[in-house]
Amino acid sequence: MKAEIIGVGTELLLGQIANTNAQYLSQKLAELGVNVYFHTVVGDNFERLTQTIHDGALRSDLIIFTGGLGPTQDDLTKETVAAFIGKPLVTDALAMQRIQESFDRRGIVMTENNRKQALVIEGSAVFNNDHGMAPGMGIRHEDTTFILLPGPPSELYPMVERYVIPYIQQLLPEKQLFHSRVLRFFGIGESALETELLDLIEQQTNPTIAPYAKEWEVTLRITAKAEQVEEAEALIAPVEAEIRKRVGQYLYGIGEETSLQQVLLETLRERKETVAFAESCTGGLLSTLLTSLPGSSSVYQGGISCYSNLAKQALLQIPESVLHTEGAVSAETAKRLAENVRLALSATHGISVTGVAGPDAVEGKQVGLVYIGLASEGKPTIVKEFQLAGRRRAIVGRAAKHAMFLALQRLKER
Amino acid sequence: MKAEIIGVGTELLLGQIANTNAQYLSQKLAELGVNVYFHTVVGDNFERLTQTIHDGALRSDLIIFTGGLGPTQDDLTKETVAAFIGKPLVTDALAMQRIQESFDRRGIVMTENNRKQALVIEGSAVFNNDHGMAPGMGIRHEDTTFILLPGPPSELYPMVERYVIPYIQQLLPEKQLFHSRVLRFFGIGESALETELLDLIEQQTNPTIAPYAKEWEVTLRITAKAEQVEEAEALIAPVEAEIRKRVGQYLYGIGEETSLQQVLLETLRERKETVAFAESCTGGLLSTLLTSLPGSSSVYQGGISCYSNLAKQALLQIPESVLHTEGAVSAETAKRLAENVRLALSATHGISVTGVAGPDAVEGKQVGLVYIGLASEGKPTIVKEFQLAGRRRAIVGRAAKHAMFLALQRLKER
Repeated sequence: MKAEIIGVGTELLLGQIANTNAQYLSQKLAELGVNVYFHTVVGDNFERLTQTIHDGALRSDLIIFTGGLGPTQDDLTKETVAAFIGKPLVTDALAMQRIQESFDRRGIVMTENNRKQALVIEGSAVFNNDHGMAPGMGIRHEDTTFILLPGPPSELYPMVERYVIPYIQQLLPEKQLFHSRVLRFFGIGESALETELLDLIEQQTNPTIAPYAKEWEVTLRITAKAEQVEEAEALIAPVEAEIRKRVGQYLYGIGEETSLQQVLLETLRERKETVAFAESCTGGLLSTLLTSLPGSSSVYQGGISCYSNLAKQALLQIPESVLHTEGAVSAETAKRLAENVRLALSATHGISVTGVAGPDAVEGKQVGLVYIGLASEGKPTIVKEFQLAGRRRAIVGRAAKHAMFLALQRLKER
Repeated sequence: MKAEIIGVGTELLLGQIANTNAQYLSQKLAELGVNVYFHTVVGDNFERLTQTIHDGALRSDLIIFTGGLGPTQDDLTKETVAAFIGKPLVTDALAMQRIQESFDRRGIVMTENNRKQALVIEGSAVFNNDHGMAPGMGIRHEDTTFILLPGPPSELYPMVERYVIPYIQQLLPEKQLFHSRVLRFFGIGESALETELLDLIEQQTNPTIAPYAKEWEVTLRITAKAEQVEEAEALIAPVEAEIRKRVGQYLYGIGEETSLQQVLLETLRERKETVAFAESCTGGLLSTLLTSLPGSSSVYQGGISCYSNLAKQALLQIPESVLHTEGAVSAETAKRLAENVRLALSATHGISVTGVAGPDAVEGKQVGLVYIGLASEGKPTIVKEFQLAGRRRAIVGRAAKHAMFLALQRLKER
């Protein structure tokens, strides 16, 4: 099957955003064994979009459009595709109901132009938009299948995972699938991981092993091609076992969707334990990450963003003398912050982070120096020192992940 | 002048990388007043690339290629363009010398395939590669100018800044540039904003007005075409004034790079005032957003992530009776949280957020119900109730933005 992806939107042609939707869809199509031969970006313009659709229909079996499904005048993807294939647009009752409900819930009067978002091409399969208003749709015309999807990634990604991949799968002529298992690592760099596994990566053809780095973690995707999921899993299992033997100490989870905070939440929940955070340089990032997960209330007692020394003294009883002699960025302060927040919030574990996020040095200590404290009921408090690379955002992000990884290591020990 | 950008490389079609080169070049071309009508990505394939060049030459005055200039077999951009325009490839002596020197410097023997990198299309203007080996080139054929550039951004960007922009400038018939002003709004949806401004959006051709929505905000880009920046600014000013007259109450800042937290930080710093947060449903997001900015320590006293009732009682003195009768999600709790965090951290302003982020209702209150409290020194405390749409991430993100916007409104009042 030959596919192409057409991004519609003048904001792409002006360089306001990058076409990350094409990247995402290309990855998904590669996993399905669908060959992508072209990406095109075209503006919100009826003639040029029509020409692009015409060229695509001649050469591709599948065309996926992103963007141009919104409520405004310049959104014209479905109008143009409908005109090309000679079908009218009709209101999808369920989509209209969901749009109306969304406004009602917020107590806002819906403006007329929002009705446009519920229009779909007559005869198309409609993909619900579970995170927004405009639904997606798929329709076959002559030898080409047209799939129209919303532009915002927060709407597009879940729609693809839930509705579009199954829709494409039933278009595929032969039953051959790609099945992946994703291993998540922290505390080892991409090149170091690749070096440890180089012989495996080079020798393997089925499954293949592909590492990639993202947000200070490394992900390893093991992909097998087979007729059945079970067969693919059997191909993957021995390779995974060998990888675990070599670099298992850095492996923290399985799956694209997991995260250090997710694994921390699950581990604490299984053990019926709780955690509290005292965050200086991370500001509140640990709290934000953990509370972003539904169900976190069962393990999270609360946190203190003790960015200022005043907060460290007033809320966490760090004596002025310690701040003066050892400093806010010190092993002693990290230790006390972890212990005191644990006690203040009656948690099983208290985690603290204090460091220099930059851009400037603090207390004569260089940017990137971070102390992480971990106080646990009935165990001696641990403090670890890190020298983290990168700019402010990287230092803070890495520090939060090191804190969660340290907690996971301790929880595993017991 | 009509332009298009053709990215060459199978790695783009597999989704291994995003086409950020097209975004970068589009921004640069927009600044020069060149209209970009298409982006295309095509693989390392002679036939498909030839077809793409053919289509481009028919419709565009300028085609910029990125990628496919390297030493390996699958790099074939210049070979394909040369064949299309009927010119041979010749060795560029300077490029060859630089490539040889690069190997000599590292003490490595040059492999034969590197000679390919010094080949250029006969008669082309050659752009030195100051950060790599393969030079770029520009050549006119019939009515179209072809520019070929290396794929790696570290080589492409400096080549564009130093050599390619001047090359394009001398192609331009008249001196004309595009200048934009970006207005940032919160508290109004994209469709409502467009409805308020519909007549302006429809009537304006210079400047143009383009709204787009991102992360629960709306951005309005006003773009003028003129010979000078000052002239463009003069075209924009009356349009901006009219927009401010109609929807100015939702305008919070100017510029692509700003944010609610940035404006809050600047406003507080100017007034020499400070803020503290008590965050229940937002977990710690307000603290994270504010401390992500360098310099936030001058205005931020600290925050409490009082996700659990225990934290509300232990750290913020919310009486059990209030939690029992009114509930954790109530106007009364929001009021007390804001007042108590302000006092606990000796801040000018205390901001609280408490609500139901979902997925489940809490205390019989529906998902999306949020109370925001704002306590300020010497002023009566404000509490506002919101019913926010979306899922967990959207509710939390929107709540944090509403809290900052509310604080900005109060700061403006004085």
